[in-house]
Amino acid sequence: MNELDLATTITDRWMQTRGPLFTDMYELAMAQVYVREGLSERQAQFDYFFRSTPDYGTHQAGFCVSAGLEPFLAWLRGVRIEPSHIDALRAMSSPSGTAVFGDDFLEWLAAPGRFDGIEVRAVGEGRVVHPHVPIVTVTGPLAICQLIETSLLNHFNYPTLIATKAARVVQSARGGRVLEFGMRRGPSTGVNEGIRAALIGGCVSTSNVEAAIALGKQPIGTHAHSLVQAYMALGDGEIGAFRAMAASAPDECILLVDTVDTLGSGVPNAIRVFDELRAAGHEPVGVRLDSGDLAYLAVQTAKLLDDAGYPDVSIVLSSDLDELNIWQILTQIGDDAERLGIDPRPIRTRLVYGVGTRLITSHGSGALNGVYKLVGIENADGEWTPAIKISEDPGKVPLPGLKKVWRLYDRRGAAVVDLIGLADEDPLPDELNVVHHPSRDGVHQVIRRDDIDHIEELLTPVFGDDVAPGPPAKIDELAHRCTIDIDRLDIGVRRLVNPHRYHVSLTDRLHRLRLDLIAQAEA
Amino acid sequence: MNELDLATTITDRWMQTRGPLFTDMYELAMAQVYVREGLSERQAQFDYFFRSTPDYGTHQAGFCVSAGLEPFLAWLRGVRIEPSHIDALRAMSSPSGTAVFGDDFLEWLAAPGRFDGIEVRAVGEGRVVHPHVPIVTVTGPLAICQLIETSLLNHFNYPTLIATKAARVVQSARGGRVLEFGMRRGPSTGVNEGIRAALIGGCVSTSNVEAAIALGKQPIGTHAHSLVQAYMALGDGEIGAFRAMAASAPDECILLVDTVDTLGSGVPNAIRVFDELRAAGHEPVGVRLDSGDLAYLAVQTAKLLDDAGYPDVSIVLSSDLDELNIWQILTQIGDDAERLGIDPRPIRTRLVYGVGTRLITSHGSGALNGVYKLVGIENADGEWTPAIKISEDPGKVPLPGLKKVWRLYDRRGAAVVDLIGLADEDPLPDELNVVHHPSRDGVHQVIRRDDIDHIEELLTPVFGDDVAPGPPAKIDELAHRCTIDIDRLDIGVRRLVNPHRYHVSLTDRLHRLRLDLIAQAEA
Repeated sequence: MNELDLATTITDRWMQTRGPLFTDMYELAMAQVYVREGLSERQAQFDYFFRSTPDYGTHQAGFCVSAGLEPFLAWLRGVRIEPSHIDALRAMSSPSGTAVFGDDFLEWLAAPGRFDGIEVRAVGEGRVVHPHVPIVTVTGPLAICQLIETSLLNHFNYPTLIATKAARVVQSARGGRVLEFGMRRGPSTGVNEGIRAALIGGCVSTSNVEAAIALGKQPIGTHAHSLVQAYMALGDGEIGAFRAMAASAPDECILLVDTVDTLGSGVPNAIRVFDELRAAGHEPVGVRLDSGDLAYLAVQTAKLLDDAGYPDVSIVLSSDLDELNIWQILTQIGDDAERLGIDPRPIRTRLVYGVGTRLITSHGSGALNGVYKLVGIENADGEWTPAIKISEDPGKVPLPGLKKVWRLYDRRGAAVVDLIGLADEDPLPDELNVVHHPSRDGVHQVIRRDDIDHIEELLTPVFGDDVAPGPPAKIDELAHRCTIDIDRLDIGVRRLVNPHRYHVSLTDRLHRLRLDLIAQAEA
Repeated sequence: MNELDLATTITDRWMQTRGPLFTDMYELAMAQVYVREGLSERQAQFDYFFRSTPDYGTHQAGFCVSAGLEPFLAWLRGVRIEPSHIDALRAMSSPSGTAVFGDDFLEWLAAPGRFDGIEVRAVGEGRVVHPHVPIVTVTGPLAICQLIETSLLNHFNYPTLIATKAARVVQSARGGRVLEFGMRRGPSTGVNEGIRAALIGGCVSTSNVEAAIALGKQPIGTHAHSLVQAYMALGDGEIGAFRAMAASAPDECILLVDTVDTLGSGVPNAIRVFDELRAAGHEPVGVRLDSGDLAYLAVQTAKLLDDAGYPDVSIVLSSDLDELNIWQILTQIGDDAERLGIDPRPIRTRLVYGVGTRLITSHGSGALNGVYKLVGIENADGEWTPAIKISEDPGKVPLPGLKKVWRLYDRRGAAVVDLIGLADEDPLPDELNVVHHPSRDGVHQVIRRDDIDHIEELLTPVFGDDVAPGPPAKIDELAHRCTIDIDRLDIGVRRLVNPHRYHVSLTDRLHRLRLDLIAQAEA
C-alpha cells in the first residue's frame, strides 16, 4: 500500500465513524410520523445557516470560513441502512413496553436507495460566509431531508468554527507560519475534522501524523521536555539531549530550549549543537520556546542566533497561543525593536506558531450556532409553500422560501454585500435597489447597480442526480480559496477585535414575504 | 446481527478511528532518538495528571470525574503497526530532502508486539479525581512509553472534561433527569466519546441513536419545530402536528409546545391531544419547552397540566442549559412557589433537562490541562532514577519518582485527602503525620492516624502481562461509582461556585525528594 492508499484508508475510517443512525432520536420519530401521515415523499427544503459569528467574549469574529462539506458529502454518498440497524430500531420500546418503531416505518426506512432523491446546494469549503446566509440547502422528500438534519449539523458546525478560528490566528500571525498542535487536548477523534478545518483556515500543517498523512501533508514536530528530562536524569544534561536529537535528525533539527533556562542554558546549548551540526555539513532548522515571556524571549533568542551566525533559523513559539496572544507578541516585538533601533521584520518572518488547545477548541466560543430550518414544503396540489417559524427574538426567525444568494463585488473587487433573494429573482432588477436587514425591520440600504462590478451566485449544486461526483478538492486549494475570499473583504471586516459588520441583506420581495408570513403566523 | 452485536460493531468503529500513527510527530522523532542512542528499552515511567480543575470563568469545579480509560485500553490492546504505516513514515523527508525516519528505526517500530511490555495503572473511570494526582501511570520501555503519549492524552483529557461537566449539571438538577442533547453542535465524531463521558457523569441517556445503541441505552427524543412548521405551512396548524405525533407514538408522546406561543397555544393544544390520547387508552409522557423564561413557563405549564389532570407528565426543558442556568431555574421556581404558596417539589421532580451544546463543549472551559510527564527512568546500572522538570511556576513542576496514591476517609466515610507518596512508603507511618501541599512550599498539615477510618489505594493495574482483560464495565456501573464518590465528598467541595478546595498532599518523603531534585536541577 502506498502513502496515498493509506491516506484513503484513514479518511475512509474517519467517514465510517458515522453510520446512518448517527442522528438524533427525534429525527427518526418525525420521519415515522411523516411516513404514517403520507407526507414522507412531499418535497421539502431545509436551509443550513448560522445566526451569528463566534463571540469569543472579549472579541467577535467579523466573518466565518465554511468547512465540512466534503466529509458530509462522503457520508451522504456512503450511508447505507443495514438489516442490523433495522433490528436495533425494532428492539426499542416505549416506557409502557410498546415498540417505538413499527414495521411500516422500518420497511420504508430499509428500502434501497433511501437517501437518494436529495439535492444539495452549498457554498464551497474555504469560502468566507456570513450570518443568516444559507450555506447549504437540502431539497428532497420531507422525511429524508429531516432524517439527515443532525448529521449535517454535526458535519458543519464544528469544522466551520475551527476553520474560522484558524483563519483569525493565521491573519494575526502576519506572514508567520501557523502549525496545528491541538490533538492532545482536543475533543477525542473530533480533532481529525478540526485539523482538516484548521488547514482550510490557513495552518500550514499539523503535528498529528495520521491526520497529516490523510490530508497529504508532512507532519511537523520538535521534541518534548521529557527528552531533556531523560538526559538530565541520566546525567548527560540538556546538551546531551540536544546532541542526541541533532545526531538523529541532522537535517530537521529543531531544539526545545526552555526546559531549564531559555537564555542562560537552552539557546547557548542549542547554538553549540548547531555549530557542531554545521561543521558536519548540516544546517539547523529551528528552536522552540514553550514558556515565559515569548515576545521578550523571541527578540533575545533572535539576537543570540544572529550573533552566532544563524539568522535564518526559525523560532517556533508555543504555549496557549491564539489570535490575541500572537497579536500581543508581535506588537511587543515591534515596540521592543523600535526601542532597540532594530528592524522587527526579520524577526517576524522567522517566527512560527504552534497553536494547540485554543485553536482546536475555539477558545472563548466552543460552538457555532448553526441551524437547519424548514423553509418550504410542497402542498397537496404539488405547489411550493414557504414555511416560517416565529420567535420572540426576530434574529431567530428563519428566512422563508426557496432562495438564492448572491455576493456582490464593487469595482475594487471587494465583496460588499451578500444578498439573499427568492429563487426566481434577478438580484438587482433596477438601477436603485432597496435591500433590507435580515431581521431588523426598517433597516435598509440602497444598492446602485452601477456600483457593482460583478455578481457571484454562492450556492452551487454539489449532490443530486445531476451532479457527477468529482475528486475531492485538495486541502491546499481550499486554503487558497479562503485566502482569496479574506483578501476581498473590507479591511474593517477583517479586524480581529470589534470588526465592522459585513452587510447581509434581503431583496425587497424576500423581505415582504417574510413580513407577510410572520403576520399570518401571528394572526 | 442482534442489537448487542451492532453495539460492538459501532464501538469497534469508534476505536479504529485512531491508528498507531494517531500521535504527534515529535513522539516518533523522540522514539527514533532513543532507538539510535540505545535508550529505547530503558524502563521509564510517565504519569498522567491534570494541573487544575476546569475554570469556567465565573465558577470553577471543585473536583473532576475521570473518563476515557476503557477506550484507551481498547486502543492499546488493538493497535498494530502495518507495513503501510512503515511505508508512509519512510516516505517522509526533511526540508533538505533527506529521509526523516531511517531503516534502523522503522525496523524497530515494525517489530511484532511493539506495544507489549507496557504496564498501566489507573484510577477507574467514573471516580472523582483531583489536581496533581496521577490518574494513569505508564511503565515500560522508554521509546514506547513516549510514543503513546499523545494518544493517551487525547483519550483522557476531553472525556474527563465532559464527565466533570455532566456531573455538575446532574448535581445542579437536584434529582431531575438530565439528557445529553449535544451532537448537533459538538465536535464532529468527538461527540461519541463526549456522550459516553456524559453518561458516566450521570446523564440518563442521549439523543444520539448510534451512541445510545453502542452504550446500551435507549435514545431519547421528542420532535423539532420543523414538524409544527410543516403542518402550519400545509394548513393543519400546531394541533395537526401534535395529533400526528400522538398518533404515531401514542405511548411515548412528548410534544414541543413553544413553536407558536407556549401558554397561549402550545400547552392548551397539547392538553387537547393528551385528552384524546387518554380517551384512546394511552398515557402521555411529556411536553418540552425550548425558549423563553423557562422557570416561569415551567411553573405555569405545571399548573395547566395539573388542572387538566396530568400531574405526572414530564416537563422537558432545553435551550442553552448548563449547571448555572438550571440552578437559576430551580431557584426561581422555588421563590415563585413560595410566593404562590405551592409546593415546589412536585415541579422539581417532574422536570427533565435536555442539555446540549454547553455540556458537550464544556462551556466556559473547553479543555482539561492534563499532561503526561516523565517521572522516572532506569539508569545504566538498572536503577530507577527520579526525573523532574523545573519551571518558573511551581504548580507546573511534576511530582518525581515512582509513586502511590491513597485516598483517606474519615469516620463519617468522607474522603478527606488524596495522599501521594513514594511507591515503597506506608501512607501513615506515625500517629501524627506531616503532609505537604503539592506545589506551595511551607504549606503543610498534620494527619492523625486515629482520625482516618480507612485508606484506599487509588491506582490499580489495568494493563500488562499480569492483567487479564475482563469485560468492560457497563456505563451504569461507572455512573454509579461516580455518584458514590461524589456523595463521599465534603458538601463544600461539591459547591457549584467557589467550592472548598479538596486536600491533595504529599508525604514528607516525596516532598523532600521533590525539593532535593529542584535544588539539583537549579544548581
